[in-house]
Amino acid sequence: MKYITGLGKADTMELSEILLPETNGKSILVTGMIHSIRDMGEIKFIILRKREGVFQTVLENPSQTLQKKAESLRVGQAIKAEGIVRREMRAPHGIELLLTGVEILSAPAAPLPIAVDKWKLSASLEAKLDQRAITLRNLRERAKFKIQEGICRGFREFLTKQGFTEIHTPKIGARASEGGANLFKLPYFHRPAVLAQSPQLYKQMMVGVFDRVFETGPVFRAEKHNTKRHLNEYTSLDLEMGYIDGFLDICCMETGLLRYIMELLEREYASELKILDVSLPKTEKIPYVRFDEAKQLISEKYHRQIRTPNDLEPEEEALIGEYFKSEYDADFVFVTHYPSKKRPFYAMEDPADEKYTLSFDLLFRGLEITTGGQRIHDYNRLIEKIEKRGMDTEGLEAYLDCFKYGMPPHGGLGIGLERLTMQLLGEENIRETSLFPRDMTRLKP
Amino acid sequence: MKYITGLGKADTMELSEILLPETNGKSILVTGMIHSIRDMGEIKFIILRKREGVFQTVLENPSQTLQKKAESLRVGQAIKAEGIVRREMRAPHGIELLLTGVEILSAPAAPLPIAVDKWKLSASLEAKLDQRAITLRNLRERAKFKIQEGICRGFREFLTKQGFTEIHTPKIGARASEGGANLFKLPYFHRPAVLAQSPQLYKQMMVGVFDRVFETGPVFRAEKHNTKRHLNEYTSLDLEMGYIDGFLDICCMETGLLRYIMELLEREYASELKILDVSLPKTEKIPYVRFDEAKQLISEKYHRQIRTPNDLEPEEEALIGEYFKSEYDADFVFVTHYPSKKRPFYAMEDPADEKYTLSFDLLFRGLEITTGGQRIHDYNRLIEKIEKRGMDTEGLEAYLDCFKYGMPPHGGLGIGLERLTMQLLGEENIRETSLFPRDMTRLKP
Repeated sequence: MKYITGLGKADTMELSEILLPETNGKSILVTGMIHSIRDMGEIKFIILRKREGVFQTVLENPSQTLQKKAESLRVGQAIKAEGIVRREMRAPHGIELLLTGVEILSAPAAPLPIAVDKWKLSASLEAKLDQRAITLRNLRERAKFKIQEGICRGFREFLTKQGFTEIHTPKIGARASEGGANLFKLPYFHRPAVLAQSPQLYKQMMVGVFDRVFETGPVFRAEKHNTKRHLNEYTSLDLEMGYIDGFLDICCMETGLLRYIMELLEREYASELKILDVSLPKTEKIPYVRFDEAKQLISEKYHRQIRTPNDLEPEEEALIGEYFKSEYDADFVFVTHYPSKKRPFYAMEDPADEKYTLSFDLLFRGLEITTGGQRIHDYNRLIEKIEKRGMDTEGLEAYLDCFKYGMPPHGGLGIGLERLTMQLLGEENIRETSLFPRDMTRLKP
Repeated sequence: MKYITGLGKADTMELSEILLPETNGKSILVTGMIHSIRDMGEIKFIILRKREGVFQTVLENPSQTLQKKAESLRVGQAIKAEGIVRREMRAPHGIELLLTGVEILSAPAAPLPIAVDKWKLSASLEAKLDQRAITLRNLRERAKFKIQEGICRGFREFLTKQGFTEIHTPKIGARASEGGANLFKLPYFHRPAVLAQSPQLYKQMMVGVFDRVFETGPVFRAEKHNTKRHLNEYTSLDLEMGYIDGFLDICCMETGLLRYIMELLEREYASELKILDVSLPKTEKIPYVRFDEAKQLISEKYHRQIRTPNDLEPEEEALIGEYFKSEYDADFVFVTHYPSKKRPFYAMEDPADEKYTLSFDLLFRGLEITTGGQRIHDYNRLIEKIEKRGMDTEGLEAYLDCFKYGMPPHGGLGIGLERLTMQLLGEENIRETSLFPRDMTRLKP
């Protein structure tokens, strides 16, 4: 019988191995895609794009055989190259490969329609998105999503260490978690169904099982407006935790989480941060301020009339960000005690003033990246609230049963992954930080 | 200004801390949900359900105040208890808490409709699923999903170490990845759209960017049959890798992956494995056999006529599993070279015989848990195949462009998370290993 026994040692090398001092002067094999070719006459540089970065290979006094082979090299080919590693200060990473052999593994049918090897792509956002899978081959475009990976990874790693359990909740359901008009509807075997706009009700239900849970998955919002900060499908980083003393416990968890993520990025994603010239925000301490106080503060400071007493306008969020940056050098600020009117039915009211809730948003450089808070855990209070709002309980039976049979005090939050990435990278448009964004007009690629 | 500075030391303890030798004899605080109460007259046991397991607290010669408080304790309450830790061989984990104080944090509105504290729930699958969020509070039910978490975590950790990048691809799209009838359709701002039945085309496209990618996310299959091994929404663990020498490289990666997952489970999920009495499968070496040979083998061994030469019937999969278990003590077997007719357009044909593909399924204890293989990477060959199949290229433009402008040789696989969990736990029905399963008749909870 023939067996598969797992991974052996690869015969080709990745960039981090090539950069080790002991590789210098050795003959090695590498694979990669030809990112660019610079022909200087006597000498020819073939730059490979590898997953950890670009790597310079050089054709210098080649044998006739190699010379002949090298003449057929083109940008966009995947090749396997053999050569001697040597120091070269002028090369990327200070190292290059003196080619001794080359094999073409695959070849494109046409030359690239856009110069992905340029430092900054010269293309509009629309053009970039239309050819997304090609334009992502640009090093800067690609780096954004490596950093996004780091954020997601940090989220899971930190929460796993904190005793959270990962869950997978259904995205097709019979009823909306939060109600409202922004639902995608679909027929499900001749019955009406909707796509999940959030895992909210499920994650709360699972607090009764695991105390602490998290989920990283897609959510769907049929919002009928195209803005620079909304997507119709995005990745939501959700957590929910039981046995809290109050909603500030959730803010503490998020502060610890953000610190962990930034430390992970600093440690393991340094080259991408450098490529994009990103400076990481401070997460040692995050100021918090009441919603009504924050509104008042910026109204006075920026001589701005308060027009929407129950909500923050985007411009107000930006000004709060500006205020806390200039006054306290803070990149983040928790805005707490949002008005009950603007929060969903499950939000817990502040016993000191029921017009407000024990909830918060986290603003990052003037944009909301998180909504969270404590939830009602008492069955009778929840039923009362639902009745007061005139809501229908149909489809909520399983959710309500959890409370009927006992739930610990709990709360949680949701973070928009693309928004957090966008603010971290200083992008102007959230489509820059979604691999294949979905908006009102964009359904492909 | 007031600041949030992160997580302090919790004043309450989790089970793993309580079990440390130095905690013995100390006064501590714990929270938990009352899982069961045993009143023995002189002595009263209040068993708490905590996220790491159950913990016995004891009421023994209480003060009058405590006695009075304890009288209002009921199953389903969330409490905070104070007491002295002491060894007690007969208690779970050999430890208990002599209560000195108790505080009720929240209380249910009604007693539990089902005894979740029983070792095995006495309920049908249907009844369990109807009250899923309650029945999951049973220790054995809950343990299944802790193990599922471990599988998913192992998948990501291993691939991250292997240089894969995590991606998030859209679940709403304009066109199916693999065609076919099993698509959920929905209107997307007055345009027709479908839910992703797999991230196949996107993950291939991203190989051109990151070389190696993975995704863990929901996929949707509108299959019109209710079987014990199908769900209409499930979690797919997908990977795709470039620069392979052949499809066996993918089998090697999966073998390494499975070994990593099993080692992680053994190390960090031992208590759940024990609760469910699971023995982990061997992953040192996995036999592989050609599709046509496998069919022939079991036809001879079990005197069974070959009725479907191009596909494996479920019974044949089971027999192949049985055969390799009895002959080679193998829990897994790779079945390779599936007929081209039954594989999607992107599957690479075997140059030695184009009727077959360079692809595989992985059977685990007689059930397919993975489909994978090498993909066509040459643009002209791909176009040829699409034409030969009479397929429409509309909506495939971005996918095809990747090949036109160059793609390395590559391949990948998809693992059904619920199926893998089901087979590992020896469950009969896949609904046992989905938190909130979706099938033709079940759209809630």
